[in-house]
This record gives sequence, C-alpha cells and structure tokens, in this order.
Amino acid sequence: MLKVGLLGAGRIAVVHAAAISAHAGSTLAAVSDFIPESAQKLATAYGAQARSNEEIIADPSIDAVLIATPTDTHSDLIEAATEAGKAVLCEKPVDLSLDRARSCASAIAKHGMPVMVGFNRRFDPGFAAMKTALEAGEIGKTELLSITSFDPAPPPVSYIKVSGGLFRDMMIHDFDMANFLMRDLPETIHAVGSSLVDPAIGAAGDVDTAVVTLRYGDGRIAVIRNSRRAAFGYDQRVEVLGASGMLQAQNMLENNLIKSTAEGVTGAKPVHFFLERYMPAYTAEWAAFVSAVTEASAMPVTLQDGVDALAMAEAAQRSLDTGTPVDLKTV
Amino acid sequence: MLKVGLLGAGRIAVVHAAAISAHAGSTLAAVSDFIPESAQKLATAYGAQARSNEEIIADPSIDAVLIATPTDTHSDLIEAATEAGKAVLCEKPVDLSLDRARSCASAIAKHGMPVMVGFNRRFDPGFAAMKTALEAGEIGKTELLSITSFDPAPPPVSYIKVSGGLFRDMMIHDFDMANFLMRDLPETIHAVGSSLVDPAIGAAGDVDTAVVTLRYGDGRIAVIRNSRRAAFGYDQRVEVLGASGMLQAQNMLENNLIKSTAEGVTGAKPVHFFLERYMPAYTAEWAAFVSAVTEASAMPVTLQDGVDALAMAEAAQRSLDTGTPVDLKTV
Amino acid sequence: MLKVGLLGAGRIAVVHAAAISAHAGSTLAAVSDFIPESAQKLATAYGAQARSNEEIIADPSIDAVLIATPTDTHSDLIEAATEAGKAVLCEKPVDLSLDRARSCASAIAKHGMPVMVGFNRRFDPGFAAMKTALEAGEIGKTELLSITSFDPAPPPVSYIKVSGGLFRDMMIHDFDMANFLMRDLPETIHAVGSSLVDPAIGAAGDVDTAVVTLRYGDGRIAVIRNSRRAAFGYDQRVEVLGASGMLQAQNMLENNLIKSTAEGVTGAKPVHFFLERYMPAYTAEWAAFVSAVTEASAMPVTLQDGVDALAMAEAAQRSLDTGTPVDLKTV
Amino acid sequence: MLKVGLLGAGRIAVVHAAAISAHAGSTLAAVSDFIPESAQKLATAYGAQARSNEEIIADPSIDAVLIATPTDTHSDLIEAATEAGKAVLCEKPVDLSLDRARSCASAIAKHGMPVMVGFNRRFDPGFAAMKTALEAGEIGKTELLSITSFDPAPPPVSYIKVSGGLFRDMMIHDFDMANFLMRDLPETIHAVGSSLVDPAIGAAGDVDTAVVTLRYGDGRIAVIRNSRRAAFGYDQRVEVLGASGMLQAQNMLENNLIKSTAEGVTGAKPVHFFLERYMPAYTAEWAAFVSAVTEASAMPVTLQDGVDALAMAEAAQRSLDTGTPVDLKTV
Repeated sequence: MLKVGLLGAGRIAVVHAAAISAHAGSTLAAVSDFIPESAQKLATAYGAQARSNEEIIADPSIDAVLIATPTDTHSDLIEAATEAGKAVLCEKPVDLSLDRARSCASAIAKHGMPVMVGFNRRFDPGFAAMKTALEAGEIGKTELLSITSFDPAPPPVSYIKVSGGLFRDMMIHDFDMANFLMRDLPETIHAVGSSLVDPAIGAAGDVDTAVVTLRYGDGRIAVIRNSRRAAFGYDQRVEVLGASGMLQAQNMLENNLIKSTAEGVTGAKPVHFFLERYMPAYTAEWAAFVSAVTEASAMPVTLQDGVDALAMAEAAQRSLDTGTPVDLKTV
Repeated sequence: MLKVGLLGAGRIAVVHAAAISAHAGSTLAAVSDFIPESAQKLATAYGAQARSNEEIIADPSIDAVLIATPTDTHSDLIEAATEAGKAVLCEKPVDLSLDRARSCASAIAKHGMPVMVGFNRRFDPGFAAMKTALEAGEIGKTELLSITSFDPAPPPVSYIKVSGGLFRDMMIHDFDMANFLMRDLPETIHAVGSSLVDPAIGAAGDVDTAVVTLRYGDGRIAVIRNSRRAAFGYDQRVEVLGASGMLQAQNMLENNLIKSTAEGVTGAKPVHFFLERYMPAYTAEWAAFVSAVTEASAMPVTLQDGVDALAMAEAAQRSLDTGTPVDLKTV
Repeated sequence: MLKVGLLGAGRIAVVHAAAISAHAGSTLAAVSDFIPESAQKLATAYGAQARSNEEIIADPSIDAVLIATPTDTHSDLIEAATEAGKAVLCEKPVDLSLDRARSCASAIAKHGMPVMVGFNRRFDPGFAAMKTALEAGEIGKTELLSITSFDPAPPPVSYIKVSGGLFRDMMIHDFDMANFLMRDLPETIHAVGSSLVDPAIGAAGDVDTAVVTLRYGDGRIAVIRNSRRAAFGYDQRVEVLGASGMLQAQNMLENNLIKSTAEGVTGAKPVHFFLERYMPAYTAEWAAFVSAVTEASAMPVTLQDGVDALAMAEAAQRSLDTGTPVDLKTV
Repeated sequence: MLKVGLLGAGRIAVVHAAAISAHAGSTLAAVSDFIPESAQKLATAYGAQARSNEEIIADPSIDAVLIATPTDTHSDLIEAATEAGKAVLCEKPVDLSLDRARSCASAIAKHGMPVMVGFNRRFDPGFAAMKTALEAGEIGKTELLSITSFDPAPPPVSYIKVSGGLFRDMMIHDFDMANFLMRDLPETIHAVGSSLVDPAIGAAGDVDTAVVTLRYGDGRIAVIRNSRRAAFGYDQRVEVLGASGMLQAQNMLENNLIKSTAEGVTGAKPVHFFLERYMPAYTAEWAAFVSAVTEASAMPVTLQDGVDALAMAEAAQRSLDTGTPVDLKTV
C-alpha cells in the first residue's frame, strides 16, 4: 500500500485525492496547502492529516508525493521530495522557466529517483486506444498529425497574466501529445496566434487563438489548433493520417440522446471541461504511476518529457514573437 | 434503343420520364394522361408525342410501357399492354383488389410476357447494399428484421379514402422489402394500428400509425413500423439482426453540415420525401428494367411479388379488424 | 449517514457495495450471503461485517437493506425487512410468481414502509434525459415507442431454466421502461417469439428472440425487441416518435476512436454488457434511494411498478403460448 | 436557350457536357479537342458538332464557351473568346504563371465581358450551406478556419511534373475556399511540406503532404491540410470556429449502411474522388453560370478570384522554398 502525500488542495488536487483514495494500492496519508483550511477540509474528507509541505516531505512513512501546487514551486518540490527518497507525480508544467526545468531534470538525473509528469491526456481512453493502434501499425507509417484543443471559455485575465502564456499553459498538453504519438521531437516550430476571443488577453500580451506547425526531421508534419473559447464546450480531438488510413479520436458527449424535429437533428454537446472529460484519464494516470513505483518500472511520462514540451512552448512563443519558424535545437 | 410509352403524366410519371430519357438505352416516345394537357406538357419537355393509352398500346413501334396511372386501371393496362406484346413496368400496387391482382397474374402467366412491379426501394443504394451484404453472409443467418417507414406528413383525407388504407397504400412497400430481404413469405401477420396523427383519418376508417409483426415458418421475425407523420421528414430505415452481427440502412440527409453551439450539436434532417430520397432508386430501377428486357433475363421484381405484398396488406388489414394474428395462407 | 445492510454478495451485489460505499450519505455496515466466504470477502473490502440475513434485519442500527439475493427470496425478505422498520431497495424482479408479488405488495401497503424496486435503467443518463425531454413536451404527444434490448450472448441454459423465461427475466426491464416513458399501462399485449440463437433454449421451453407489441387505451403503441445475442455487444436503444419529433437514446461506445481505411470507416462497439453500460445508472439509482429515504419522499420506483412489469411479462408469456393478444386486465 | 461551345473533351469536359445538356436553359452546340476523335465522340453523344477551338470561337451563333483545355491554353482562350463576345466559364487554374493570369485579367477588365472561373467547390451543397450559415451569423464572427483536402491517391509523376506543383494544382481549390468563406485575402502565408507519399514526387521537386497557415489582417487564422493520398478515399472537410459556435462540413459517404459485428461498427467510406463527390457541385456551378449570363448579373466566381488563388499558391510555394512566411502583397 503506497502512502501518499498530496501537496496542494486546489481544484485539481481534489481530483487526485479521489483517485489516490479509490485505488486499491494507495492511500492518502497527508494533504498540504498554502491555505491551511483547504488542506484540512480535503484531509478530513479522506481521513488524512493536514500538514505542511516540509512535514510531508520529511515523513519517512510517506512513499510518494503528488505535487499539485502553483507552478513556480514545482521544481523546488520535485528536488526536495526526490532527495527525501520519495517517488513523485508532478502536475504540468514542470516550470515556466525552461532553464529551471532543465536544472531540475539534471538534479534528478543524478540520483535517478522516479519522477512522473502529469500529462494526463496520454491516459485518456480514446488517445490511448489511438496510441495502441498506431504502434500496432493499423494505419501504416504516420504522416500528418492534427490536434484540436479548444477550451469552453477563457480563464480570467488575472490568471492569463501569470500563466506563462497560451503555449506554456494550454498548448503544452498538445506538444506532449505530439511527442507521445509521433515518438520524436520536431526540428522546426512555427506559430501563428492572435487575440480574437478577448481583447484583454491581447492587452496582457498573450494570444487566445493559435495554430502551430511542427516539422519533423523525416518530413512528417503536425499541426496544433488552440482556442480559449468554444461556445459548445471542451473540444479535444486528435487525428492522424497514415500511409494506409486515418485514426480520429473524437469528443466524449454529455449523453447519447438525439432529438429530431422540424428544426434539425440535435445531439448532446461534448462534456463541458477537463474535469469531466479527463476524469477516466486521471484515474488511469494514477494507476500507471502506482504500478511504475511498486514494480520499479520506467515512468510512463518522464521529467524529460516535461522539459521537452516546455522547450516546444518556448520555441512556439519565440516563433510568434519573431514571425518566423524556430529551430527547436536553438531553444 | 428501347422505345417507351409512358401511361400517366402525374407526379411519379414525371420522375420516370426523366429516368427513361436519361438512360442511354431507352427513349421516351409517347405520353398519355386522362388530363390531355398534362400529357402534352410532359411529352413536349422530352420531345415525345402525347397520345391516348389505347394508341400507345396499339403502336407496334413501342417496345415497352411504364404504367403510372391511377391504381384501379393497373390490372387492365398490364393485361392490354402485354397482350399487345409490350414489356411492362407498372407502379405499385398491382391493384387494390387482391382477387383482381391474382387474376391479372394468372392472365400474364399464360403468355409469359415480362412484367415488373415498381417496388423502387429494392433499388435504393443503401437497401441494395444491405441485400448484397446479407446474401454474402456478412452477418450470418438473419433472425430479426425491423423496418421503419414514416412519412413526413399525412396526405389529404380525400386521398386516404381512395387509397385502400395504410397497409395497401403505404406499408405495401415495407411488405415487399421484407420479402426481398427475408427471401420467404411469413406464415402469420399481426397488426396493431391507431389513428393518432389526424382524427379525420380515423373517421375515414383508416389508421395512421401501425406496427405489424411477421412470423416466418422457420421462426424468424420481422416488425414494420409505419406513421403518416414524422415532423423531421421522411424516415426510411431498415435494420437486420443476424447470427454474427447487425446491418442498418440509415436515412440520407439533406446535407453534411454540422453546427455546434451552446444549444447542442445539430445536423441536417433526412431528405424530405420519397422523390428526394428515392431518386437514385428510380434511376436504378429503370436501368434494371431495361437490362432485363434487352437481355431477356428474369425481371428483378415480378408481378407475383406485387401480388404477395398485396396479400400481406390484406392479411394485416384483417388482423387489425379482428384483433388477432392472421395466417397468410387464409388470405 | 444511512447505515446499510447488503443481502447477497454476488455479481450485482458487488456493484451495489461500491455505490453504497462511494455515496457521501451512506455506509456499508454489513453483508450477507448464502456462501459465507463471499459475504466475508465483500465485507472486508469495504470495512463492513459479514452477517446473516436474519442478523442484519434484526439489527436496529441498520437503516436500510439492499436485497440482491436469488429471486425466490425477494418477497420474503422485503416483508421481513420492512416489518423490522427498514427501508428497502430490492433487485428486480419482485418475484417470479405474480400472485406472490401481489401479496407482497399488499402486505407492504398496510404499513407503508418505503420499498424501491431496482429498475436501474430509469437512471441511465440517456434514458433519464429522454424522460425529461418527454415531460418537457419537446416532441409533443408521444405516439409510438420502440425499445431495443439485445444481450451480447445468451446465459447458460441452466440459468434459463430457473429464470422464469425471457419475458420475466429479460424483457421485464423493457416493460418497466415502457411504463416509465408512456406513463400508463397498456391494454393489450401481443408476443411473438422463437428460439433462433440456441436450440437448447427452445428445448428448455423458452424463446431467445421476441417482439412484443403493446397497445394503450388511447391508441398509442409500443414495440419491444429482445434477443439473447448480438455479436457486437450489448444493444440498448430507445426511440419515441411524437407529434412534433423523435427522441432516440443511443448506445454508449467503448471508446471514441474511428479508423478509416480502404476497408471502411470503423468505430468502437457498444460497451459490452450491463455492468459497463449501466454503472452510472446504478450509482444514480442508489443516490435516488438515499434521497428518498432521508427526505421521506416518494420512492422513484415503487413495489407496484415491480408488480406491473411482472404482470406484463405474464401477459406476454400467455400471448406467446396462445398465439393471440392478451388483455392485461385478465392477468 | 444558351448555345454553348465546349473547348476540350477530356475527363472533366465529359462532366460539363452532361451538365450543359441537362440544363433546361442551355444546349451543347459544339465540342473541340486536340484529339479530334475525342471531340467527335463527345459531340455525337449529345447531338453536337465536333469543331476546332477557332471555329467555335468564330461562330456568332455560339453564346458561351466552357474552357476545359490544358492549363497553358486557358489565358489565350479566355482572351480570344471574350474578344469574340462570348461569356466564358474557364476551369481552374487560370494559368500556371501568375503574371500571365494577371495580364489576362487586365485584358478582360478593359471590355468587361463576363468570365467565371471554375471553382466548383463553392457550389458543393455542404460548403454552400456553410457559407449561408456564416453569412447569417449562425456562429458569430469567424475566428479559425480549417480545410482538409486529401486525394485518394497521387496522380502519375508525369502529371506532377507539369502540374505546377501541389499548391497551384491541388491546394488552389482550398485557397479559393478560404477566400470564399473568410471574405478577405490573408496577409501572410506560411507553408510546410514534404514528400512522404511517393519519393518520386519529391524527386520531381514537388511535395505530396503540406500544411499551410494563413494569417489575416484582423488576426483571424486559417489552416489548410493537403495530402495526395488517403487510403480510405477522397477526404474533403471544412471546419469554422466562430465566436458563438462551430460549423463542420463533412464528407459524403458511398452509402448509408452500417455493419456491427464482433470486429466493430463499420460504415461506408467517403465517395471515392472528385467526380463522385462534386457531381452536384458541377451541376450547380453550371446553373449559376447560366443564370449570371442570362440575367446579366455578377459572376459568382470572377477571374480575379482565380488570380487571387493563384497568387496565394505562388506565395505558398515561395514560403516552402525559403522556409519563412511570405507577405502576400510581395507576390
């Protein structure tokens, strides 16, 4: 039974607490948060203790920590927890600073403690089935990958300002999905972006609509489309064209009811946002982490994966700023 | 080049005139109608002559006639045209009287002239593909057939009164589809029906909503659902459950556009009515008739098929009237 | 916090134990089973006690019991538990004997203790959304209901022999669904059935494929299709035609992946069987029961609902045996 | 009745001949081709005369010409035919040389004769319905356009070599679709492309897989995906994200049959190639041309539209060659 300390008690931590508690091989031992009342409330709900980050990391009875704190604390906590001998699952991104993420990865590399980065979408049933089909060669050699990722509505501008920008905050998931499915890093990255959804996002120096094109060394191409707003809900689709066919992972819908009237034939919208859509993915992600820790096998998503996606976000931002494609090796 | 006389110039005759004219192996030579102006107008549009039924049948240069006149003239015209040596394609039903249809079939049997009954749905691309898949054994032995056939809106009550009733007028197409797909006639027929759409239909002694169950000698089952009204348009679906799978022929839609908004995800309705839905079927039906005549091969739909479907309609009506299942052999 | 005793530790009891345990307002206190090891195993997994039916019913600290024992014990346990002052959720069917089910309902009516029958499909998200849309008048007056319910594969013949037959064992769910959606009981019931899937089922005196037609006093019609085998999985669809449109509740699929190759465009099958398909329904069913008990409000499914569905199954069996429609009032 | 001369008797000319002949307001008077036998055969099929380009253009009884000759003759024939007072419908592209296309447009501008360029996809029912919905504001302000255009299989390399390259030969349709739907020309164009499908295409200096990103002056973005090969058939989809929703025009399928077996749920592929997919579009295109000529109204697609799309292809090629985005104004 893996004893787990949960660092952070915010929205995403609540999801993780449920997954940790529901898993037969793990138990939630402690919760921390910079708002002590939040930690206490979540701890109580699962029969765990509310403690500080430091106390949790120092407790030798705790086997693993899940880091769901603000991004700027991720690297420090990863280093502290692994030095204390704990397995770590850290929410994405590793850091907003690529340099800091890289130094964190170097530090970890020295002792080799297991660290997994929370790219939960790899564990979505549809995307996982796509990965399996690709690896099985069901559509032959991959040629063109297309990722669509639209949020239902933009976050508050206050959040945008500290988010690191659309590429580091939102598209980073899609960069990792590209790395997951294409099994290689792109050579060049070109970004086009605009503020179309909310002028305040543009005023804050960010974009809310973007298309990024990735070109790989072997000529393959990927294109990622992001928007901070889709009136119909959370739009998360992936499509791969291969030499002998195409795979498409479609949205999950709110229900299976269809209404046909004189106005047309209407079905349900996609499930509203990431908590609904990726709930099965969070559960599967935690199970994969527990398996890797208990079996001492390779982490299914590594800290290097987190650094790679962050470097791609950095390159995309630079491409947007300069108006030209950026060689990923120069980042 | 098959020279064709078209008897009738009404709505369905207009469709046939276009098919006859467009086919490379046939030409429209003459058109008749009890309203001479209608015959003249249609003849002019295709460079044909407006003539009487009698003149067309008597003209030795005419190879085939297509009968699209009122139902009560069908049997007489089939007999007259075949006696004059012409191949015949006659619109369904053969007759409203089962006895008269049977005597017509007997008369034709004596000289063996080729007669085809216009069960156009057998030539619908979706239903034809289903037939092909069934014959190829793609779902194994058929077990349960379900036919859905809803009109967009009921006809005028004046039409209902002379139509022969829902079973002879509307469900007769579905009886033939069952015979086409099941390759056998049912043993017993049970009908449930109501007037729910328009009380005037009930007052005229007919039903507008009906479910008919067919039981075959080998235990297989078919169920047919009819309604005179579907607010969203013409609903024509067939579904077959077999030992190793299921086939479903779905509706054709007005277009392929999908709109996703906060209200839901909306697509187009089915094409509105039979002229839109079955236009490809009418074209293919005519081509099949021309092939059978010119190659002197078996008619793809026979007069006996028309009699069989009419007998099933008769049995369904009797079942509705008595409230009990009817043995088809007793009809 | 509702303290719950679970009678039975079989396959469906395991599902209920998880729902009871996961609900914030209920806790699993005790589990019984005629195989003590099964009870012990399930009890241990949820920190509950393994006890006998009698001990659980006699324990005044237990507020409610969930009956998931063999069918022939249901009526006795319902009576015993309610006499002991407990709220009851009992799996369907109430009994295989309509007389016994009715005497049980009479016994309960005297003291008025809350009893709910486990027609879980009423709580399926798609069917519940359909019910809401119907009640909101989204398609106007209902006219024609169609229920499709195909199992992936037949149960062992040993089970068939004690099941009470297809109508009481399998179609009983569909009878309740008809009652739920049509808000009335039918007047007449007509059944057609065959043994097509497995001759051993026919040899055991049962059918494996059936179509049942229901006619209501106001002329509305419902048709239910059942098969014990669908090679592609569990097929659970409901369709309602109304005066101004149609509602269709479709299957849930295993995943959202689509593969397009030279062979065609292929998507996932429906989820395999009832445990996968109706897991959300079981959770919602339990929540509805807890709400009704704690708020002392009306049970969302009553014992009378259980008796009604059983009477319809009885009528369907009689119709199959006699070959004629049966008046429900005569059952 | 518009008397029409058809210049060219190749594959696409055959399609146009049928549309011209079937239209009630036009008749096919003459056909030319550099292979006289081809012209004769097509002319005979429609009761027209086989003549030379020069004879057709010089014949004062001919009202309009449809130019379906090799691309390098388009500009000369447009100029000659309009100088002879004929309305012109010319197949795309106007020319492989942007300069020549522009000089042709200048020449035409002087006398103002009506010239339409054959961007048939504007008349596809799905895309036309999308345009109508956009103009009606059904999804609010457009933000992100995505066009998918995959051919079923690459043409022979011999064709590739004289085609002008993927951007001028294939993506030119998509550039026009972008102009049609976005109602503006982009400011900058960035192309990424590779030869993945067939190395011989790369050896010939062309690409077979490409993604082009368009950025508009108001910040809107469009992305076009092309591949010369899709194993499942012709893939032609358009998707527009707007402020209040999304529109998707989907593929037309070969039929509406669905097969469900233990292997999955399989539907038909998209119709195979452009002749099948765009047959309704060719018919509607011709009808629009006839209307514009006979009513002396504005051409629905102008010669300038042809020049604009060609300039975008030129910019895309330049972007691919240089690896950087290209300002459309510099082309």
